[in-house]
Amino acid sequence: MEESGERYEAAGVKGISVWRQYLEGRNIAQAGERLRNHGLEIVSLVRGGFFPSTSAAQRQIAIDDNLKAVDEAAALGAEMIVLVCGADPGQSLTVSRKQIQEGIERVLPYAIANNVKLAIEPLHPMYADTRSAVNTLEQANDMAESIGSDFVGIAADVYHLWWDPHLEQEIKRCGANGNLLAFHICDWVSPTVDMLNDRGLMGEGCIPIQQIRGWVEEAGFRGFNEVEIFSDRHWAGDQDEFLQKIVASYKSC
Amino acid sequence: MEESGERYEAAGVKGISVWRQYLEGRNIAQAGERLRNHGLEIVSLVRGGFFPSTSAAQRQIAIDDNLKAVDEAAALGAEMIVLVCGADPGQSLTVSRKQIQEGIERVLPYAIANNVKLAIEPLHPMYADTRSAVNTLEQANDMAESIGSDFVGIAADVYHLWWDPHLEQEIKRCGANGNLLAFHICDWVSPTVDMLNDRGLMGEGCIPIQQIRGWVEEAGFRGFNEVEIFSDRHWAGDQDEFLQKIVASYKSC
Repeated sequence: MEESGERYEAAGVKGISVWRQYLEGRNIAQAGERLRNHGLEIVSLVRGGFFPSTSAAQRQIAIDDNLKAVDEAAALGAEMIVLVCGADPGQSLTVSRKQIQEGIERVLPYAIANNVKLAIEPLHPMYADTRSAVNTLEQANDMAESIGSDFVGIAADVYHLWWDPHLEQEIKRCGANGNLLAFHICDWVSPTVDMLNDRGLMGEGCIPIQQIRGWVEEAGFRGFNEVEIFSDRHWAGDQDEFLQKIVASYKSC
Repeated sequence: MEESGERYEAAGVKGISVWRQYLEGRNIAQAGERLRNHGLEIVSLVRGGFFPSTSAAQRQIAIDDNLKAVDEAAALGAEMIVLVCGADPGQSLTVSRKQIQEGIERVLPYAIANNVKLAIEPLHPMYADTRSAVNTLEQANDMAESIGSDFVGIAADVYHLWWDPHLEQEIKRCGANGNLLAFHICDWVSPTVDMLNDRGLMGEGCIPIQQIRGWVEEAGFRGFNEVEIFSDRHWAGDQDEFLQKIVASYKSC
């Protein structure tokens, strides 16, 4: 995390989202302060969620872990937690979706008390078995509107949503209702050889990133365009070069 | 193909869909007759489609190939051709979708003249880059209704559609409009390790096959429940055992 702070600053990057595992064993408040001293705004803590389970005990463990994430976000100085909502292949998507909403509503009072927002991230339908039963922006909009709190919104990631014929209208709806909290970019490469870790730099694939960014901006979003590239291919190379490629790819789109 | 005819008959299977590559070098009419002599109804020819391309010449090649597929289906005695509609990552999904509809409309008169139906198969959104720009049953319904021919309908595959929160209503709509031509089953295993060839036997995964079958039957479908399991894992084993597992799995769901 310290290295990222230095390198991001040198590369002109102005924000960072922090994955929770990198906070383990660190003084969280000091870690946040150090990142801010590098000129970085801490956009979000990644990740909460994983609410559904056939086991009630497991659902309680998930809620407790999300409450802990609220503490971490508050200590770090992150405005929001991104929720990978979860799914359990042992039960229906309908039940998992109900448990997700219940889980968010259980965590919400504590999030409000700590001034931390919860961002539902709809995930690509190829993750519907275990990672998220919320698979379209329409579903995320429905859920956020049903909960109806200023502290619950949505993280929209082009990788998960680009194929959706209703994307433009749902982004418009999301912005109009004040629910568009985060925007993630990367690209879909062809062929994709791994379902998790084969994302591309912006421009390496077929996602119309500029068009979608246009919709997001028309919807009133003024936050960061967050680059999120899980890639065994790019991770295997020199990470300074990867950072330079990210910056160039970001500017080109 | 000859082996499948014998083994399917012995296993009590009553129908078969034929992939085009197995017709190469064979007398197609005789191949069809031989399958029927094993008590098999030839449900469909697989596959036509792949209409979109940034190249006009390539789009014409695709149309010519689909016309050839109509000849093959007629010779084989298959009632329909399943369309894997195609997509080109070099152009927008909107353009690809337009080219798909244009391609189908170009092939349609010849299909009608040969009494062969064209079944649009919506494919999972993870195939939106290269295999199909038609990714939901709603889109397929829209397209089939827009074309408005008794010779254009839809092949619904649980693998592609199970995650869709609008699935029940779109199956109902599809049946009500007379467009539900085919129903394919298999299962989604967790974890899925290959995006193409890691499908499961019915019951190995998390798709609510019985529930979806119920919706399909309520929508008036009376055709075959076609098992379609692309699986490196199952293909690597003894194929007689795989067939027995398929039959058992079919009966259990």
